[in-house]
Amino acid sequence: MIKPLNRSLETEIQKRIDEKTKPLGSLGQLEHLAKQIALIQGTLNPKLNMPSLILFAGDHGLVDEGISPYPQQVTVEMLKNFVAGGAAINCFARQHDLDLSLIDCGTKIAFSHPQVIPARQGPGTKNSLKGPAMTNEQLKSAVEHGRKLVLARKKVGSNVIGFGEMGIGNSSAAALITSRLCDVPLEACVGRGTGCDDRQLRQKSQVLRAVLENHSTAQSPLEVMQAFGGFEMATALGAILAAAEEGILILMDGFIMSAVGLAAVTLQPHVLEYMVFCHRSASPGHRIILETLGVEPVLDLSMRLGEGTGIAVAYPLLESAVCFLNSMASFKEAEVSRSL
Amino acid sequence: MIKPLNRSLETEIQKRIDEKTKPLGSLGQLEHLAKQIALIQGTLNPKLNMPSLILFAGDHGLVDEGISPYPQQVTVEMLKNFVAGGAAINCFARQHDLDLSLIDCGTKIAFSHPQVIPARQGPGTKNSLKGPAMTNEQLKSAVEHGRKLVLARKKVGSNVIGFGEMGIGNSSAAALITSRLCDVPLEACVGRGTGCDDRQLRQKSQVLRAVLENHSTAQSPLEVMQAFGGFEMATALGAILAAAEEGILILMDGFIMSAVGLAAVTLQPHVLEYMVFCHRSASPGHRIILETLGVEPVLDLSMRLGEGTGIAVAYPLLESAVCFLNSMASFKEAEVSRSL
Repeated sequence: MIKPLNRSLETEIQKRIDEKTKPLGSLGQLEHLAKQIALIQGTLNPKLNMPSLILFAGDHGLVDEGISPYPQQVTVEMLKNFVAGGAAINCFARQHDLDLSLIDCGTKIAFSHPQVIPARQGPGTKNSLKGPAMTNEQLKSAVEHGRKLVLARKKVGSNVIGFGEMGIGNSSAAALITSRLCDVPLEACVGRGTGCDDRQLRQKSQVLRAVLENHSTAQSPLEVMQAFGGFEMATALGAILAAAEEGILILMDGFIMSAVGLAAVTLQPHVLEYMVFCHRSASPGHRIILETLGVEPVLDLSMRLGEGTGIAVAYPLLESAVCFLNSMASFKEAEVSRSL
Repeated sequence: MIKPLNRSLETEIQKRIDEKTKPLGSLGQLEHLAKQIALIQGTLNPKLNMPSLILFAGDHGLVDEGISPYPQQVTVEMLKNFVAGGAAINCFARQHDLDLSLIDCGTKIAFSHPQVIPARQGPGTKNSLKGPAMTNEQLKSAVEHGRKLVLARKKVGSNVIGFGEMGIGNSSAAALITSRLCDVPLEACVGRGTGCDDRQLRQKSQVLRAVLENHSTAQSPLEVMQAFGGFEMATALGAILAAAEEGILILMDGFIMSAVGLAAVTLQPHVLEYMVFCHRSASPGHRIILETLGVEPVLDLSMRLGEGTGIAVAYPLLESAVCFLNSMASFKEAEVSRSL
């Protein structure tokens, strides 16, 4: 059971924000972020320690049905790119000194490397058109792996963790999960993913409609994850739940990770209070999740890259929120006159 | 005359962006920023050198008419707060290592300090309800001061400069300028500034309508600046024009500085190509300027603090844009398969 956020300091935190030398409320969303982070940490002086980004990779059996314009080996090729430091997330993680953990949750082609943490549930999920994407045992094992990864980051002192993903085909899995959990038509959740053309988009929609129909009994978040999800998504689910349990600030990325976040919040509503949605993705399904959860993301830059890139580029804004709360002078300290 | 941006490298820059290991266009607005910065600098490998923020302070005679809930001495009190390092802009400038220059363009109460660059045109502007806010000589002198400040920053190596302001009453000046230059009703441009209540807002609107009527012949950007503007705004106008002339990336803040930017673009349309609008302010008039100029700001955090704070918190996103262009691997370099 994840506890509701302890709000006993709320009035005091708000007072501290309002005493800063600025017009009331004039730092907008940064003030909300500052308050949320202070509440999560239960202090008037929050600190972001050892910010981490855990990047989960996994392959999807449904790719056999031609739902992605990229070949499946791109998942492992990108994992190698992450190791080599050449991907977008590497640039942004370096820029903001985010610790990047790479997790192999089950790519089709195995890639063993000292920098990749193995958490494989198999060589990609099964084709969800023909049956559940994973077994119940695989789901449980993935969730448990996710939990352990978060506890390991907590142990080294991290109190803020973002979750990113890589997996060719996982925008389809996210669309299926979103459609079922939000009870909205599939069409509203299906986008071009990594870049489908019109023909591919029609093909993708047709396949996904059939998958959804084949799993009409999958309704709960865990059933839905087992039926449609990826190993990277199931592992992230365990990680998100554990992070909330441990009172860690959870940084959410775009559509795929938000679909996992939606599952987590559906299971345990208070998880939402520990989450910051870092950006609004260009993927149509992401808007539905954000509206369903009633959250306003930090950035809206029409990004749709995944990997946790939306988290990484938004991270300095969280630091700004913490920074003004800790370092700005009050009207009294600075001897500035207040409004008449 | 400010030259149009040299676009000869555009195709090559776009190719370089498109070869990065990511779906086409998936970094959204960061890709547009990367291209703009590369075009301004005329290189495939842009660098942001010695980022500077110039903060102009000045007082407004119109404050005598009760248009602001804050007393006028707050302008100089905040200038002291900037010197002491306790204001919001100090926190964010420190966070991102932005060089902060403080300019006294004419506060009512003079404050001399080694960290404040004097560029005073007088002890605040005149009351624009009763006549022009400044003389033509003051306007010219302020513009020239602004130009020199930018040249000085260029001389030390700065190729990216943001412009911020402090001046009790200057949201009224910005509303007047916006209404006249965009030819929109004053009501659409008047907001609560630093925090008017309903009664103060009515009072502010009534005063501003009268000011606008009293200066019906002020139509060109320079006439409008002389009639309604502040010394901090006139100095910023000179600074913005000089920055574009020198091919410096110009970082725009919220409503007040964007009203100055609007005047600059009205005078010299190509200035716009050197500008990045860092955030969308919560001030209603700002939306009108952004729509008139057809620009999309980087952030939308409901901030309305001024001081250049919107620039400072957005700055790391510009660094992210430059960073991915310079550091991400291409599909070829990383041996990642392209889409089918």
